[in-house]
Amino acid sequence: MPVVRRTAGRPGRRAAPLTTPRIAVTPQGGEVMTQAVERGGGSVADPENADAIVWTDPARPETLGEVLRGSPARWVQLPFAGIERFVAAGVVDRQHTWTCAKGIYGHATAEHALTLTLVAARRIHRHVRSGTWLGDRGLQAPERRLKTSTVMIVGTGGIGAALRDMLLPIGARVLAVNRSGRPLDGAVRTVPIGDVHDLLGEADFVVLAAPATDATARMVDREWLEAMKDDAWLVNVARGSLVDTAALVAALRDGVVGGAALDVTDPEPLPDDHPLWTLDDVIITGHTANTWRMAVPELARLVEENVRRFAAGESLLGVVDPDLQY
Amino acid sequence: MPVVRRTAGRPGRRAAPLTTPRIAVTPQGGEVMTQAVERGGGSVADPENADAIVWTDPARPETLGEVLRGSPARWVQLPFAGIERFVAAGVVDRQHTWTCAKGIYGHATAEHALTLTLVAARRIHRHVRSGTWLGDRGLQAPERRLKTSTVMIVGTGGIGAALRDMLLPIGARVLAVNRSGRPLDGAVRTVPIGDVHDLLGEADFVVLAAPATDATARMVDREWLEAMKDDAWLVNVARGSLVDTAALVAALRDGVVGGAALDVTDPEPLPDDHPLWTLDDVIITGHTANTWRMAVPELARLVEENVRRFAAGESLLGVVDPDLQY
Repeated sequence: MPVVRRTAGRPGRRAAPLTTPRIAVTPQGGEVMTQAVERGGGSVADPENADAIVWTDPARPETLGEVLRGSPARWVQLPFAGIERFVAAGVVDRQHTWTCAKGIYGHATAEHALTLTLVAARRIHRHVRSGTWLGDRGLQAPERRLKTSTVMIVGTGGIGAALRDMLLPIGARVLAVNRSGRPLDGAVRTVPIGDVHDLLGEADFVVLAAPATDATARMVDREWLEAMKDDAWLVNVARGSLVDTAALVAALRDGVVGGAALDVTDPEPLPDDHPLWTLDDVIITGHTANTWRMAVPELARLVEENVRRFAAGESLLGVVDPDLQY
Repeated sequence: MPVVRRTAGRPGRRAAPLTTPRIAVTPQGGEVMTQAVERGGGSVADPENADAIVWTDPARPETLGEVLRGSPARWVQLPFAGIERFVAAGVVDRQHTWTCAKGIYGHATAEHALTLTLVAARRIHRHVRSGTWLGDRGLQAPERRLKTSTVMIVGTGGIGAALRDMLLPIGARVLAVNRSGRPLDGAVRTVPIGDVHDLLGEADFVVLAAPATDATARMVDREWLEAMKDDAWLVNVARGSLVDTAALVAALRDGVVGGAALDVTDPEPLPDDHPLWTLDDVIITGHTANTWRMAVPELARLVEENVRRFAAGESLLGVVDPDLQY
C-alpha cells in the first residue's frame, strides 16, 4: 500500500484537513503505532478525548465496548482482518465507522498457505517426524509437485489473490471459489460458493481463505469432504469456524481425504487431548500465519494512511460492512 | 522443453535422418521410456546392438562400464543431473558422447528448495514436533516472511533460475553466486564464488544449488558458516559433498547459524546415530527433492527429444563437459 503524504504543493487535490484528529491507541500503546498516528497527521490522545480509537488487541471486545461508551470517538480501527469476535459480542454498531485490517495481511497469510500446501505436497511433516533417512523409499514416495497439481482457493480477497500470485509462477493449476462467482484472474475457473461441489473433485489442495461469517460457518462438512479426492489436502489459514472439526476428524480417519494443514482450528487453542494431534497427516501451526511481529509494520502503515484520510475527510481503507460481517 | 516432432512438411529444415537409431534402455526398461525412444524415432535394442544407451539407474556406474565394453554405442544418456558417481568411477570417458539430465529437473528441485526455505522461515518443523498448540506464544514467535527476507542462491543453473522465478513473485530479495559472476536476472547482486564471503552476511537463507565437483567439495566449511548471520539457515538441495558436515554440526551446536534444511547429506543415507538427527533446527528430507515418480515424465520428454536429435545428427541436450564434471 503506497503511503500518500500531505504535501503543500498540490492545491485543489482535496479539501484541506479540518483538524488534527485526536487518536487513542489502546489498550496497548507502543512507539510504532503512536508514531504512525503522528506521521498520519494525528495527535495521540486518551480515549475520553479522542476522535478515533486504534484498538491494538486482537480480542477483548467487551473492553473495547466499555472504552467506546466513555469516548466521543466516531471511528474505530481494529488490528486484524477477522472481526468475528467483535461482531459476536455486539460491539460493531452502526453509530461508529469501523475499519479493520482486511487486505493488508493477505500476503503474509498467503505465504503461510503456500508453505502449508508445499509441506503437504512434499510430506515434510513425515520427514520431520521420521527421525531416520527414508533411503530408496524416498524415491518411491508419493511426494507431489505443485506444478502438476490443482489448487482450489476458497475466498478471493487479499489472501486468495496473493496466494494466486505465488502459485501461478510455480505452475500450479488454480481454481477459485467466492461469494459471487466473479472470476479471479489467473484461475482456470471460478465458481460461486453454491457450486463448489462441482469443482471440489478436481483439487489436490483446497485452501480456505474466506472470512468467518454466518454464511461460511462449518461450510466444510462431511458432504464437502466427501466431494474431495481421497488424497487431497485441506489447508485452512482463515478461521477454524469454517470447518466442522468432528466431520474433518472422521473424514481423515476414514481416508475420505488425504490430510489437513491447519493454522486455525475450532476450538482454538486446540486442547492437547484433541484427536487432531494424533493423526499422521495433520499439521497444526497454532495461528501463526500472520504473527504480531509480521503484522505491526503493515498495521502501522495502514494506521498512518487512515489517520491521514480521516483528517482529510476522505474515505477510509478497510471499512467494515456490518451486513457482511467483514 | 518443447518437443519437436519430425514432420514431412518442412523440407530443408535439417538433414534427413541417416537411420532409425537403435537405443538400449537399461538396466530397467519400462514402458514410459521405451515409448519415449519410439516417439523420438528410435527402435529399442539390446546394448550389444545399440547405437546409444539410456541408463535408467541413478547409480551403478561399474555395471554401466561393463555394459559399455560390450556395446558399440556412441552416446550414453544418464538419468539424473548429478553424475559425480559416474565421474568418480572413471566411466565418463572421451570415447562416448555423454548427456545427463541437467536442467530438466530444475523446477522440481527448486520447488523443494522453496518448500524447505518456507519451512525454515515459518518454523513448521517446530510446530510439527510440538504436538501442542503454541497459543499466544505463537504471535510472539520469530516466524519470518520471505517477503522481508534475503535469499542467496548458490548456483544459477536450472535449479537456481527456477528458484529465482518462484522467490521473486513472493517478494524475497535474491542474491546469486556462481562460478563466473555472470549476473542472474532478478538478483540484486551476483558474485563469483570466490567473493561469496562478501555477501554471506546479508542472507537470511543460503540455498545450495550447485553441482558436485572438485571445486565445490566441502566449500561450506567453518569459515563459510561463520560468515553467515547467526539466525540464517543453510538449505541444501544440491549434494551433500558441498558441505563439511562436521563443521555444520559444530556451527549449529555453537549457534553460529540458525538451522539447516538438508535434502542431501554427507554421508548419505545419514545413519540413525548421526548428530544431525538430534538438533532442533535441522530438517532432513532424505533426497526427495526430485523423486523418481516426478522425474520419469521429464526424463521421458528429454529422451524422446535427444533420440530425435541423435537420429537427425543434431546436437544433443545436456551434453556433459568432462572437464567441468557436469
